[in-house]
Amino acid sequence: MSSKLIAIVAGVGAGTGAAVARKFAATYPVVLLARNPDSYQSLAEEINASGGKAIGISTDVSDSKSVQLAVDAIKKEFGSDVAAAAAIFNASGGFMRRPFLEVPEDAFTQSLTVSAKGGFLFSQATLPLLLEGVKQKSQYPPSLIFTGATASVKSSAQMSSFSTGKWALRALSQSLAKEFGPEGVHVSHAIIDGVIDIPRTKGWLKDAGPDAKLSADGIANDYWYLHTQPRTNFTWELDLRPAVEKW
Amino acid sequence: MSSKLIAIVAGVGAGTGAAVARKFAATYPVVLLARNPDSYQSLAEEINASGGKAIGISTDVSDSKSVQLAVDAIKKEFGSDVAAAAAIFNASGGFMRRPFLEVPEDAFTQSLTVSAKGGFLFSQATLPLLLEGVKQKSQYPPSLIFTGATASVKSSAQMSSFSTGKWALRALSQSLAKEFGPEGVHVSHAIIDGVIDIPRTKGWLKDAGPDAKLSADGIANDYWYLHTQPRTNFTWELDLRPAVEKW
Amino acid sequence: MSSKLIAIVAGVGAGTGAAVARKFAATYPVVLLARNPDSYQSLAEEINASGGKAIGISTDVSDSKSVQLAVDAIKKEFGSDVAAAAAIFNASGGFMRRPFLEVPEDAFTQSLTVSAKGGFLFSQATLPLLLEGVKQKSQYPPSLIFTGATASVKSSAQMSSFSTGKWALRALSQSLAKEFGPEGVHVSHAIIDGVIDIPRTKGWLKDAGPDAKLSADGIANDYWYLHTQPRTNFTWELDLRPAVEKW
Amino acid sequence: MSSKLIAIVAGVGAGTGAAVARKFAATYPVVLLARNPDSYQSLAEEINASGGKAIGISTDVSDSKSVQLAVDAIKKEFGSDVAAAAAIFNASGGFMRRPFLEVPEDAFTQSLTVSAKGGFLFSQATLPLLLEGVKQKSQYPPSLIFTGATASVKSSAQMSSFSTGKWALRALSQSLAKEFGPEGVHVSHAIIDGVIDIPRTKGWLKDAGPDAKLSADGIANDYWYLHTQPRTNFTWELDLRPAVEKW
Repeated sequence: MSSKLIAIVAGVGAGTGAAVARKFAATYPVVLLARNPDSYQSLAEEINASGGKAIGISTDVSDSKSVQLAVDAIKKEFGSDVAAAAAIFNASGGFMRRPFLEVPEDAFTQSLTVSAKGGFLFSQATLPLLLEGVKQKSQYPPSLIFTGATASVKSSAQMSSFSTGKWALRALSQSLAKEFGPEGVHVSHAIIDGVIDIPRTKGWLKDAGPDAKLSADGIANDYWYLHTQPRTNFTWELDLRPAVEKW
Repeated sequence: MSSKLIAIVAGVGAGTGAAVARKFAATYPVVLLARNPDSYQSLAEEINASGGKAIGISTDVSDSKSVQLAVDAIKKEFGSDVAAAAAIFNASGGFMRRPFLEVPEDAFTQSLTVSAKGGFLFSQATLPLLLEGVKQKSQYPPSLIFTGATASVKSSAQMSSFSTGKWALRALSQSLAKEFGPEGVHVSHAIIDGVIDIPRTKGWLKDAGPDAKLSADGIANDYWYLHTQPRTNFTWELDLRPAVEKW
Repeated sequence: MSSKLIAIVAGVGAGTGAAVARKFAATYPVVLLARNPDSYQSLAEEINASGGKAIGISTDVSDSKSVQLAVDAIKKEFGSDVAAAAAIFNASGGFMRRPFLEVPEDAFTQSLTVSAKGGFLFSQATLPLLLEGVKQKSQYPPSLIFTGATASVKSSAQMSSFSTGKWALRALSQSLAKEFGPEGVHVSHAIIDGVIDIPRTKGWLKDAGPDAKLSADGIANDYWYLHTQPRTNFTWELDLRPAVEKW
Repeated sequence: MSSKLIAIVAGVGAGTGAAVARKFAATYPVVLLARNPDSYQSLAEEINASGGKAIGISTDVSDSKSVQLAVDAIKKEFGSDVAAAAAIFNASGGFMRRPFLEVPEDAFTQSLTVSAKGGFLFSQATLPLLLEGVKQKSQYPPSLIFTGATASVKSSAQMSSFSTGKWALRALSQSLAKEFGPEGVHVSHAIIDGVIDIPRTKGWLKDAGPDAKLSADGIANDYWYLHTQPRTNFTWELDLRPAVEKW
């Protein structure tokens, strides 16, 4: 199955990652990366059942060996000359709001490990495939997209464990955008500034009206739009928030 | 011709403004504002000839009386209950790079007058029409889009006359996004970071390859995309630059 | 009285400007600029009575003729080869929080006129004197300092008339810092993020404790510190806020 | 030796850290932390010989056990109720400019480990001592100061390993400033934007004139100034660069 362009999504749960995977699966075979098969199994089945193609690979993005095994599995499935049209990094260390002196070292480093080191390993693993996509003259410029948050640009009190990872990831994305833009790879960073409407947030913001939460499908559309921008008009960063959000 | 949604574009020359007008004309009647009929006449004819509808109104956006006359003309043409789906502010004071002590007062104030005061008057004139669009439940959230530049976020040596106007316009757009987002109007600011490929820049960046300049049609697509974002996923700001741009 | 270095302060009322003038008057003769003699008269008397030297000049910083007359008066007083050690722009258009559609054109343009055009005229008038200070090898690098606010970096809803002027002034200061740093003039911008403790704010923040407001004398110290930084260690921007401020 | 206020400096080599230690040693006993005794031994001797007091402790700031041992050693030396007037984090992971795909995992994580995790561990270790300083009513508000760089606010191509750590550290400092300012601890971040004049950079920028490099003693003065700001006028962030620096 050589010379086929694929999309790779890291961090697929019941929210943004799944919506993004569904969106890109309409055009590309998708590879779903998550630590736990529970996170991708039903999604892969759904995509495969509806005419798309998806494979899930249990991967810890913060572990270089695990990431290398994922690349090996991708090449085994799609051929050693497999190229990527898109790679989306949607993984995140655990959100925590806690007085600084009570933050356990493990919690602090876990955010850095997933967001920063994970972002690094994912980028080193997928950029060669994205550059191969450039070489194979993909219809749209191959895209590497990172999911950011309010905490990517603002570091609130009691939030340092989350924000340090997110600021580091944003720095990574900016450096990569500058280095790989001229190579034809489109690197973007989306600042998700609000609550995303997913099963886990069902009861949140109940009194704020029907549009108080970001739509995960909407984010998927936004990522797809970034992906389709031509080489002349690359966006590195955009923010996304509900109309009613205070900011 | 009541309950018709229109799009209003200020600053239509041979470049971005014209491309944006063409793009929005595929869906809405467009109103073209420019000081000089030369700037909009052939464009209006082209749009009208190709099945769209366009009218041009000679307007100095930095003069409140002139802006009021434009609103009167719009209401005369489209009815007093006219609503706007989009208003795009693409006007700009003259770009100037000159040692600060040699910048004439007129040149400095002209940038402020067009960008900041012009942006203010244009917003006060069009926001009531955009709010009317919200009331009339337009398909897409009514959009107020401002064209920014590299100089909107970076104030280089010898560039203060241009950057002061652009920073002020960005401040205006951020304040309006926060105030009118909850009202249903989508306010955005696009940072155009590079040279746009228009007749005036034909000879520029010749050695930098075919994609070294931003596509004006691409910018129009980007503005259209912003316009179609749903209430749950508003972008205030995005940057746009050629893949090969150094930044 | 030639080859004497002076300090010039624009915007001296009962608050920051007066404190800054007092501080710099300990070292330099000071020139106090304000539209109304009421704003500088008693301050000038106080400084002169306590062994310093101060003159007040009624000046509208947003009017180029008025600014030119001030420069003429300075040269008449201190000699045509007068040099400046410091020029501090502390003027500001009126603060206003009001729904955007109710902001009068005059109020909007007044902020731009004072902050942006005033900053421009003040800079064009004082930079030649500051450059003369470089030539005369002043002990400390001649300093041009601008007073900013929270609204210089954040444009809140209903605050656009104030923030547009402040963002423009910040852009001016950044451009000047880049152009005139290499010439030996130190250009700085201070973000005053909080309420300043002055007569007008006496009753404010009563329940927030004794240190909830910025000290005007403290700001004066901060400006003096900026002034004394050597050529190797120039600060363009710093923020200043009470320890208890939420941000 | 109870109720004595100390200063703690992490990252003392031949440059900024040493200059900062000398400056603060004029007022406080100083604790010098570095991995290698070579980095602090002669400095400690110099300070002790010139009438100050300094102790060096071999510490790996990225290792929680090592940091805990340092705190134990401090308490043994200065008493269990020791309080800190200042804690300065000047450590940094290795600077590296290299094509992203050639950056070894170790190099990438080392920057995160020293800057981000090290900053975290140093802050958790010193904040209790700084809060004790507040309780003991130190003359100046106890200060926690972080050394940043150009790469703290700008992430250039091929620089992601350095910038990710530096952005994370800046996020940490902002969060701590917001949380601990109201507690009376002054948290600051200095953006050092240029080459520092230290033995290692002796041959650099030779043609750029005598003032083309930042003075390490100047930085020490700047940190001391931050330390002396009163509770009403805290600076979180300032930038520092030579007058001639291009930016």
